[in-house]
Amino acid sequence: MTFKTDIEIAREAQKKPIQEIGAKLDIPNEHLLPYGHDKAKVGQDFIKSLEGRPDGKLILVTAINPTPAGEGKTTTTVGLGDGLNRIGKKAAICIREASLGPNFGMKGGAAGGGLSQVVPMEEMNLHFTGDMHAITSAHNLLSAMIDNHIYWGNELGIDQRRVVWRRVLDMNDRALRDTVVSLGGVANGFPRQTGFDITVASEVMAILCLANDLEDLQNRLGDIVVAYTRDRAPITCRDIKADGAMTVLLKDAMQPNLVQTLENNPAFVHGGPFANIAHGCNSVIATRTALKLADYVVTEAGFGADLGAEKFFDIKCRKAGLKPSAAVVVATVRAMKMNGGVAKVDLGAENVEAVQKGCPNLGRHIANVKSFGVPVVVAINHFHSDTEAEVEAVKAYVAEQGAEAILCRHWAEGSAGITELANKVVEMADSGVANFSPIYPDEMGLFEKIETIAKRIYHADEALADKSVRAQLKAWEDAGYGNLPVCMAKTQYSFSTDPNLRGAPTGHSVPVREVRLSAGAGFIVAICGEIMTMPGLPRHPAAETIRLDDDGLIEGLF
Amino acid sequence: MTFKTDIEIAREAQKKPIQEIGAKLDIPNEHLLPYGHDKAKVGQDFIKSLEGRPDGKLILVTAINPTPAGEGKTTTTVGLGDGLNRIGKKAAICIREASLGPNFGMKGGAAGGGLSQVVPMEEMNLHFTGDMHAITSAHNLLSAMIDNHIYWGNELGIDQRRVVWRRVLDMNDRALRDTVVSLGGVANGFPRQTGFDITVASEVMAILCLANDLEDLQNRLGDIVVAYTRDRAPITCRDIKADGAMTVLLKDAMQPNLVQTLENNPAFVHGGPFANIAHGCNSVIATRTALKLADYVVTEAGFGADLGAEKFFDIKCRKAGLKPSAAVVVATVRAMKMNGGVAKVDLGAENVEAVQKGCPNLGRHIANVKSFGVPVVVAINHFHSDTEAEVEAVKAYVAEQGAEAILCRHWAEGSAGITELANKVVEMADSGVANFSPIYPDEMGLFEKIETIAKRIYHADEALADKSVRAQLKAWEDAGYGNLPVCMAKTQYSFSTDPNLRGAPTGHSVPVREVRLSAGAGFIVAICGEIMTMPGLPRHPAAETIRLDDDGLIEGLF
Repeated sequence: MTFKTDIEIAREAQKKPIQEIGAKLDIPNEHLLPYGHDKAKVGQDFIKSLEGRPDGKLILVTAINPTPAGEGKTTTTVGLGDGLNRIGKKAAICIREASLGPNFGMKGGAAGGGLSQVVPMEEMNLHFTGDMHAITSAHNLLSAMIDNHIYWGNELGIDQRRVVWRRVLDMNDRALRDTVVSLGGVANGFPRQTGFDITVASEVMAILCLANDLEDLQNRLGDIVVAYTRDRAPITCRDIKADGAMTVLLKDAMQPNLVQTLENNPAFVHGGPFANIAHGCNSVIATRTALKLADYVVTEAGFGADLGAEKFFDIKCRKAGLKPSAAVVVATVRAMKMNGGVAKVDLGAENVEAVQKGCPNLGRHIANVKSFGVPVVVAINHFHSDTEAEVEAVKAYVAEQGAEAILCRHWAEGSAGITELANKVVEMADSGVANFSPIYPDEMGLFEKIETIAKRIYHADEALADKSVRAQLKAWEDAGYGNLPVCMAKTQYSFSTDPNLRGAPTGHSVPVREVRLSAGAGFIVAICGEIMTMPGLPRHPAAETIRLDDDGLIEGLF
Repeated sequence: MTFKTDIEIAREAQKKPIQEIGAKLDIPNEHLLPYGHDKAKVGQDFIKSLEGRPDGKLILVTAINPTPAGEGKTTTTVGLGDGLNRIGKKAAICIREASLGPNFGMKGGAAGGGLSQVVPMEEMNLHFTGDMHAITSAHNLLSAMIDNHIYWGNELGIDQRRVVWRRVLDMNDRALRDTVVSLGGVANGFPRQTGFDITVASEVMAILCLANDLEDLQNRLGDIVVAYTRDRAPITCRDIKADGAMTVLLKDAMQPNLVQTLENNPAFVHGGPFANIAHGCNSVIATRTALKLADYVVTEAGFGADLGAEKFFDIKCRKAGLKPSAAVVVATVRAMKMNGGVAKVDLGAENVEAVQKGCPNLGRHIANVKSFGVPVVVAINHFHSDTEAEVEAVKAYVAEQGAEAILCRHWAEGSAGITELANKVVEMADSGVANFSPIYPDEMGLFEKIETIAKRIYHADEALADKSVRAQLKAWEDAGYGNLPVCMAKTQYSFSTDPNLRGAPTGHSVPVREVRLSAGAGFIVAICGEIMTMPGLPRHPAAETIRLDDDGLIEGLF
């Protein structure tokens, strides 16, 4: 069999003018700020005018732990959105936007795949509507103002060894991970060691994605802890007086981006925080706007459900007051086989036993998601080599867990291949059985929160942290940060902190290596393993072959 | 007298949808890529389709040496464009776009002033259509790929001490002027000293402004010399294989931006290279596009005519094959007085003698511009405190130089105040007396070119350069760069290299401290004095007071 590539399909898309897509959600033209003919931002004033309207139903798409076989979480999010529209529902999807930098290392990614994609794909992988650039500017303005404050006398008494705010660039550039700045003499300031992260790792990104509106945005930016004095008193962005100017830089970026699926249904693509040191969900403002405009809103969370759904529930939904009505856990027969011990090269051969052996990974995610009070359905994202027996094995396993698994062919067929899932999701969402609540209360101690996630979601025996980590958590509790949720940063490939431990491991420990305060975003990051916040380029970066071809089309990006 | 501020006037603008502005130039809607409702890019395909059309007449607006009194070059460019439209001509203006970073240091600038402005002012001072961000990305991609090349084995044999390509950020950040990168061990590369410039100082900016089209853009990017080997052989961007991906990043930025004046006339605002280490003009592609679409195109050059007009003629017009039909030299009574020795605080009092004493600065600029074969008219940009006697003194002086000076009240009155100048410009441009040619031929030696500019434009006795500078110029001539024009980087405040030497000095020398090769942009930079390529923030940066007010308007930016 031969298939068209995602980019070939995307280029054949019969896109409609973005105003027509907006009209599907009754957004008046004057409130749609176009960026070219196929992208727009939804105006701030219009969003404000929606207050008081009833909300649509929120559906989360999450997945098993990712494997090299690929699960198709975004593909299923897009497909389900199209499927809901196909069965006559007013539905929209909400997904994250891509970072520019990594596209020059490895090839860029589609938003979805096959016949379930969001377009325009190329622009979404390049500058899009400039949100990433705005975040880079806002972040680096604060950086410049910190060093400038020290330069002009350091009235706030910043300990130059304790400036924790780095700089960012939307580029894979390992040379910038660890730098010394302000060399060259008196006119250039006081030399100190610091570095750059990639833009999506910026706390500004996490803040933009969690802020309710521009006022809340400015408050959160003001709360960022950027440095400490010699006696460890925190210095905030507000102390540096950067919060107002950063808000001005971010005012357009705060407006959700509207694009379309291949089937011309509305897609909000807005915000893209890291899913390890941040919460990995699209923006609250996009999700809320979509809920005001559509009856069903399908969104996704980063990585597998252990990280992504947990953070979606415990951070985003908790803080934004969102109440999801249903969740879809995406699985594939191939991923089940990999969880069952099959190597990637052997995935083509039927192996019902391996499928069955891998299913407990899925089972645990189902149970975890249910434990938040949200009803679950499993989407089996069909791959052409899947056999009927394998699919039946997954269905049988899921039925044993008290849930239903539905085979979906949206990749190959678009919305026509996913109407069964769409109907099921509507049934679940409309049934009112959802009774969402986060897994731990705000007032629980910070380390207890980590322990709760480790035990109840990862099924570990314990969370470990040395004295200094516990002392730091205690210090933050004393400073009034004890009511923040925790944001776990661990490998996405396993319930454990060992990326090679597939399936549904038990008996493991979760060691917390380091904790960080994201006071503006409003969470404590617990780092369990190595986290890279500035990627490098490979030996032969994709950039070497990216170019415009003779027809002006982009070659090498995908 | 009290006046409205520029921003107050700009906010009261009765803007028309950008499609209506495009329609004035017969740009079809589908070729106008909107960015919001009041900004658009003109599509690449449409620009290509204009080839073969006749060109309109090109009018340069330049000025005397800038003084703290202000001359109003952009204001006059905008006013003249409106004036031409008022007298029934199909006219457009072409100006540069602003850099984001400096707005957070000092307050941002209007594009023009009074009733002669281009809008939307705030957006033009912030992210606008993202061109600066695209240039930052393209520049830094090349930087990352150079370090990445060295990291993975350095096949090209780059001498790490001789990497001349730095990084850029659109931010005033003195801490980044001089840095060490790649610290932190094996995974982060080989430590070396380098630094950041502000984005507008990037050679990528100069290239974008001189490139004919995307193909030429890629060729020029490929030509950039980024480093040297141990035996001083140049390594280019093409060797690093970054030219294709950089072109992809810049493809939207290469499309000219269309906005409008307060009188709803078309204004192209595109490209903004430094006027010292680069040529300081808006983009060739915008100017060419405007010439295809309008009968009269008014554009401006950076600083005074000694730097700006000279580079406009000898670099931009020479390379792009543009033939200006007329030039306007902007002067003010107040600036004449300052050139005549009056302090800024005393400018309010009538002082005809000082005006007469300062006029030779204007006279020399008139003669210089004429020496390129372009007819000249002087615009006296009226200020409310100017007396009739003072204005007459300027007029009389200019008449003695064989030119005409016309009093213009466009700042206070808009196009109604500048019809006399508009009529005069049309008369000059239509007369066909212009016979443009650059001041030196391509084949002249590089140092001789510097000497020619120093003697014929600056009226210096000599250009000075030590042995190493002359040897470097010789080496570039041997390497095939001898036919490039030179780009002079000296103070804008004087014909000499001493910023305090006003009027029309003679007998001075022009010492060339350093020369740089901009092989992609296509010029040799001769640096005569201190040039700052990364500004710092002041003690109390404007950013500290920039914020959104309760109505969502930006406070503190202007």
